[in-house]
Amino acid sequence: MSAASPILLTPGPLTTAAATREAMLRDWGSWDGEFNRMTSAVCADLLGIVHGEGEYVCVPMQGSGTFAVEAALGTLVPRDGCVLVPDNGAYCARIIRILERVGIPCVTLPLADDEPASAAAVEAAFVDEPRITHVAQVHLETSAGLLNPLDEIAAVCARHDKRLIVDAMSSFGAVPIDLRRSGIDALVSASGKCLEGAPGMGFVIVRRTLLAQCAGRSPSLALDLHDQWTYMEKTTQWRFTPPTHVVAALRCALDQFIAQGGQPARALRYARNCTALLDGMKALGFTSFLPPAVQSHIIVTFHAPRDPAWRFADVYAAVREAGYILYPGKLTRVETFRVGCIGAIDEEDMRRAVAAIGDVVEQLGIRGV
Amino acid sequence: MSAASPILLTPGPLTTAAATREAMLRDWGSWDGEFNRMTSAVCADLLGIVHGEGEYVCVPMQGSGTFAVEAALGTLVPRDGCVLVPDNGAYCARIIRILERVGIPCVTLPLADDEPASAAAVEAAFVDEPRITHVAQVHLETSAGLLNPLDEIAAVCARHDKRLIVDAMSSFGAVPIDLRRSGIDALVSASGKCLEGAPGMGFVIVRRTLLAQCAGRSPSLALDLHDQWTYMEKTTQWRFTPPTHVVAALRCALDQFIAQGGQPARALRYARNCTALLDGMKALGFTSFLPPAVQSHIIVTFHAPRDPAWRFADVYAAVREAGYILYPGKLTRVETFRVGCIGAIDEEDMRRAVAAIGDVVEQLGIRGV
Ligand SMILES: Cc1ncc(COP(=O)(O)O)c(C=O)c1O
Ligand SMILES: Cc1ncc(COP(=O)(O)O)c(C=O)c1O
Repeated sequence: MSAASPILLTPGPLTTAAATREAMLRDWGSWDGEFNRMTSAVCADLLGIVHGEGEYVCVPMQGSGTFAVEAALGTLVPRDGCVLVPDNGAYCARIIRILERVGIPCVTLPLADDEPASAAAVEAAFVDEPRITHVAQVHLETSAGLLNPLDEIAAVCARHDKRLIVDAMSSFGAVPIDLRRSGIDALVSASGKCLEGAPGMGFVIVRRTLLAQCAGRSPSLALDLHDQWTYMEKTTQWRFTPPTHVVAALRCALDQFIAQGGQPARALRYARNCTALLDGMKALGFTSFLPPAVQSHIIVTFHAPRDPAWRFADVYAAVREAGYILYPGKLTRVETFRVGCIGAIDEEDMRRAVAAIGDVVEQLGIRGV
Repeated sequence: MSAASPILLTPGPLTTAAATREAMLRDWGSWDGEFNRMTSAVCADLLGIVHGEGEYVCVPMQGSGTFAVEAALGTLVPRDGCVLVPDNGAYCARIIRILERVGIPCVTLPLADDEPASAAAVEAAFVDEPRITHVAQVHLETSAGLLNPLDEIAAVCARHDKRLIVDAMSSFGAVPIDLRRSGIDALVSASGKCLEGAPGMGFVIVRRTLLAQCAGRSPSLALDLHDQWTYMEKTTQWRFTPPTHVVAALRCALDQFIAQGGQPARALRYARNCTALLDGMKALGFTSFLPPAVQSHIIVTFHAPRDPAWRFADVYAAVREAGYILYPGKLTRVETFRVGCIGAIDEEDMRRAVAAIGDVVEQLGIRGV
């Protein structure tokens, strides 16, 4: 792999398969039946991945994943609701910023960057603050790579009759989620994460009876999930111009996802990538930030070496030269960097990436790794 | 051209050049300098097309064109402002819906579908309603294909010190717009229209001093144009995951736009397409909806023949079979259909498309055309 077209070890955009990119070589009319059947097949497959057929609907949304998160919050939570946000990273913090902007009251449950949310803490918050009507839970906090215990939190929400909105941006398709036995009301993700499509489209999988109650509630027209849904139900078309090439790429990526064995197979490949990464980096002397119990197989945060010869920008440039794109850290208190395990890559790619990092550490004379 | 990959005679998504689609065959990291230099070159070229260098900035926005329109309105108009909307079609009506949702007072100037806005009517509205602070003007009302007199309206806004926000979705790049001698404060368009990129990204070109006053005003985080701008200025990066492949396609489409001679050359090609269309359809007996004085060279609305044998769905399917995608009408009072003149097509394509329509009319035995 040449430096001109490096492998992305980043959690979206990520490296896509050649077939997925080639699916963008054709133009599609947005009014055309063939395109609209493609959209509807994409939505059906997305529902299938989390066993949401029947009770749930899948509503696609133009834009990045954050657009779909805001669409879900702004459409599904009434203005007199109150949202509990367990906060262990930057994407939780983004949900809080969205709620503030949209004008929805929220209560945060502050946690450390390496501390998962817990059902007990969520339950205690329900008791402390009876105004809480909804929980907005980030499934996999990509800032550190931390996996929150979704099933337990969903169960406590169901028991207390609270609506649960899940940001599953970087877990959907790679971590098991089963809507049949869950207290999940809405699930948000996007085209360019573990489904390995091109970025440009998000989606919300939401309980049909809940969405049906939300007409006219969104403070935004573009991000009105109810309007997007009812228009599509009525016409089969997207309300506003769809990112046609991105939809076609996602269709192709989903075909591969299914052919490769679906979510279990995707999880297995990423787990192998992650093991190859963790083992290889450990052999080089790097230490990962999270304790193994909460480390996901999606992205790993490593401590930056203490040696002042370590400058992330230099390491990044040298590793890029070797054909791999690293990711900066997103933690505020400790200096870290991240390596993603997702995308159309396998453990061989990961071993070569680790070898490239090892070469760069040596070249730059970085000690104390 | 086979029916499997028809030519799109639709006003976006449209037919793109092969080179533009091939630019999507590569993955890009969103944190990577090479990608961010590409974004910044795209923005610089977009500014150049309308001579906005210096006083204006170009802020890209994920999503379809409507997302950028809503971002501009929600960020630039204070909640105690009042927006005048001259209304001669569906995209004007959409602006009114956005303003209602966002909670910004507005005054509409109702016009017929074939009646252009006028500086005199806008000026009269200023006198009638002194609360008006802004005008939201659709430059080219794509519903019928009608061109509004932007320069005159901009002059009257400047004279009365009203801020002018222009939806130039389907005119940008193909109709001359010069920010140097205008009263335009903001101009909105998107990747997949006359620039002939793939759909998935909008942009707002806005007076720097105006945008600088709008911190924290947007009622949406995702659609906050000020936040998008300041983050990009500070980091060179997009705030949230960019549609990387769409940005790369737009970069390539802009290279072709410039190499082909820029806006004047694009206007000339589209005008030739439009003349070939109008002449050919007239020869077949079709009549166009708009008077020539206000007919743009972007899209033409034709009256549907009165013969009950004309069913648009059947005509659409048969013309599609021949390799061309038509567009339905968007007028409420008369039955019409539309043919777009934009995209990577020339007058030869247009003549073949008209011939295909003629064949279908004959096949289906439609009379009274
Ligand atoms: C957990 C999580 N939520 C939200 C987002 C935001 O998505 P986007 O950058 O596509 O807006 C991300 C992006 O990586 C994420 O990992
Ligand atoms: C004048 C005008 N405004 C707004 C839009 C909306 O753009 P989009 O469909 O990309 O949201 C269009 C789309 O064709 C348009 O022609």
